[in-house]
Amino acid sequence: MPSLHVAARMEHARALQPDVWSTFSAASLPPDCINLGQGYMNFAPPAWACEGAEAALKTAEGNQAAPVTGIQRLREAIKAFYGTQYGKELDAETEIVVTGGIHAVLTAFVDPGDEVVIFEPFFDHHISSAVLNGGKPVYVPLHPSQDNQSQHGRKTWSIDFGELRRAITSRTKMIILNTPHNPVGKVLTRQELETIAELAREYNLLVFSDEVYETIVYDDREHIRIASLPGMWERTLTVSSTSKLFAATGWRVGWLIGPPELVRPAFAATLRMSYCTNTPMQEAAALSFERAAAHDFFAVQLQEYAEKRALLTGAFERVGIAYTVPEGGYFVLVDVSRVRWPDDYPFPVALKGRGRDFRAAWFIAVEVGVSSIPLTAFYCEEHQEFGENYLRVAFCKDVDTVKRAAERLQNLKNYIL
Amino acid sequence: MPSLHVAARMEHARALQPDVWSTFSAASLPPDCINLGQGYMNFAPPAWACEGAEAALKTAEGNQAAPVTGIQRLREAIKAFYGTQYGKELDAETEIVVTGGIHAVLTAFVDPGDEVVIFEPFFDHHISSAVLNGGKPVYVPLHPSQDNQSQHGRKTWSIDFGELRRAITSRTKMIILNTPHNPVGKVLTRQELETIAELAREYNLLVFSDEVYETIVYDDREHIRIASLPGMWERTLTVSSTSKLFAATGWRVGWLIGPPELVRPAFAATLRMSYCTNTPMQEAAALSFERAAAHDFFAVQLQEYAEKRALLTGAFERVGIAYTVPEGGYFVLVDVSRVRWPDDYPFPVALKGRGRDFRAAWFIAVEVGVSSIPLTAFYCEEHQEFGENYLRVAFCKDVDTVKRAAERLQNLKNYIL
Repeated sequence: MPSLHVAARMEHARALQPDVWSTFSAASLPPDCINLGQGYMNFAPPAWACEGAEAALKTAEGNQAAPVTGIQRLREAIKAFYGTQYGKELDAETEIVVTGGIHAVLTAFVDPGDEVVIFEPFFDHHISSAVLNGGKPVYVPLHPSQDNQSQHGRKTWSIDFGELRRAITSRTKMIILNTPHNPVGKVLTRQELETIAELAREYNLLVFSDEVYETIVYDDREHIRIASLPGMWERTLTVSSTSKLFAATGWRVGWLIGPPELVRPAFAATLRMSYCTNTPMQEAAALSFERAAAHDFFAVQLQEYAEKRALLTGAFERVGIAYTVPEGGYFVLVDVSRVRWPDDYPFPVALKGRGRDFRAAWFIAVEVGVSSIPLTAFYCEEHQEFGENYLRVAFCKDVDTVKRAAERLQNLKNYIL
Repeated sequence: MPSLHVAARMEHARALQPDVWSTFSAASLPPDCINLGQGYMNFAPPAWACEGAEAALKTAEGNQAAPVTGIQRLREAIKAFYGTQYGKELDAETEIVVTGGIHAVLTAFVDPGDEVVIFEPFFDHHISSAVLNGGKPVYVPLHPSQDNQSQHGRKTWSIDFGELRRAITSRTKMIILNTPHNPVGKVLTRQELETIAELAREYNLLVFSDEVYETIVYDDREHIRIASLPGMWERTLTVSSTSKLFAATGWRVGWLIGPPELVRPAFAATLRMSYCTNTPMQEAAALSFERAAAHDFFAVQLQEYAEKRALLTGAFERVGIAYTVPEGGYFVLVDVSRVRWPDDYPFPVALKGRGRDFRAAWFIAVEVGVSSIPLTAFYCEEHQEFGENYLRVAFCKDVDTVKRAAERLQNLKNYIL
């Protein structure tokens, strides 16, 4: 007879272990610590973006359950936003569905034992959604450059395509991509995407492309959608959301784009698991898209992030330690291999058994007053050593916060070997 | 090698079949049809209830991701709302978690092959969440009374406790309750709950109690929480939400109540599947609870529903067909066994293979102009005949709508044998 015990999938997903977000939450750290850990903003979306919700809240239907595929106004706005970026116009009825996305896709397509190829460092929700559905993650690490491109070393990260090919077996169902990549900031090039696409076609694989940072791509980089490459539309589901597009991580409005044959099962899983997405914030999302062009919003937002990126990378350059210059997204990885702390430093028990990077993140949060997220949280157990030297530092904060953090970070010099 | 095909769980949950909600959606029916099908309101929550969201939208943190357990203000408001109704004061940190609830609970506790006892007619999300997690629903039908308690027969529904006991096997993990019950309107009595509790204790079962209609209990009935019975707190998770409490089905804010050992896994599943609940509507929910007493809100709302219940049951009484008088919730079941339509009536293909009640619901929607939901949608395949005579008619609509529907329904007389 089963007991009151949790399901085995919870153990497999290590879902009951302390997660890195709780360990490095604002509540766990000194109150005056500047939070560059979690990837949410400390500023609001523009007021004109929120007005759709305010209007909806004054109506009957704006407070009631939405169609499970999403309100039509939002699906039409999403269609207009993408135009022909997918190599075609989207059908708002059958090729766009409003949903949290990740868990719905893995639930709809991954059978127990199916293998899911995931690049490391990963976004932890990709892993847990695969494992909770009985899927087996197969990890392909991105590799940091060893060469020093500036005085103190700017790291870039690359895929070993031999390794990627060897990761594919007869049980592989899906490759999960994330471009721009959280946390390494890599924007996959056309050539890289074409090589991945070739493998997906050759082995008849699904591709789940997480492109939530799609509007935050710097310099002369181009965000390319793998779904727009030849033979890829029919095997790709792409997810995005208001979280990063409109600086609104609390709205919980996401969407999937893909062919009807793939969108429909993901929609069906959403319907059965969570029914619909909250209505007021769907209205806000729709109005945000409708008004974005008039405010040149995405260009302005990108410029603001670029300035904050410069503040943060400049801080690490002045400290004299290696770091990444993200091509997209809003995270900088900093190499803390040269940061030192006393042997008897009093770390909390929650860090026991975790990598050196957990201790570095804690030490810097407490002594320098800037929090971050240790990179080994985004590696499987076997690959912990790949992440041990890095912390993820977020700059999706208002410019004053990033400036103050950049100043505080100069104190790292006191702890460098 | 796996193909691009959906996961087997989608077939098991029949997730890709047309669902009853789509078949009887407003979009599928004549535009002037009065919608008493879906259980959402055609009115807004009170303006004072929405103001928490409007305020939140003007702040930074009100637009950003919430703590995964829910914002503290809401958990404190929930704790205050329940007082000692669970036989104790709740701990807002460890015994309350803000989550959609149903899918998180089934994911956290049901292993493949585990049996989940579910009463029929069921709420379809209980079934799909069980099956998507590999659980096996075991159905225990509620039985309508055969006696005529009024001129035309008022139906009441009861549990056969011998049947319930026989449904429990060595694989039973959980019993799912719904009180007040959607759609039969039954409010489980203390004696019924004590008998269920005895079985749960005897066989060491979890109880998942869906009490979302908890504030809508009529006449002298009392809503009793199974979690408050002896030996039940430690084995029970109870779910509720703003959908029915504040007439806000679009906010998507729900919560689980239970002991830390059960709440924590459900929280962990939520964290890994969907992260947090949207923040602005959590703020609205918190303010709604804080302000409800000053407006005597739950008593006023109950009185309004009682008046609409009287309008609708009165309509069926005048037509002269049998119906239920719900003890709780906002649905009336009407017995359409005596309703007749022409043999060659043009039903849409979507009804093919479905029960007589599907045809009755369609015929009445088109010819009488009032939509409803056929009851067999809430029975397993083996038990379809139990539901064939009934339609679920919702009265969670403004009073004018219910009045107009009551008038239209008098035309049923033209189609009665």
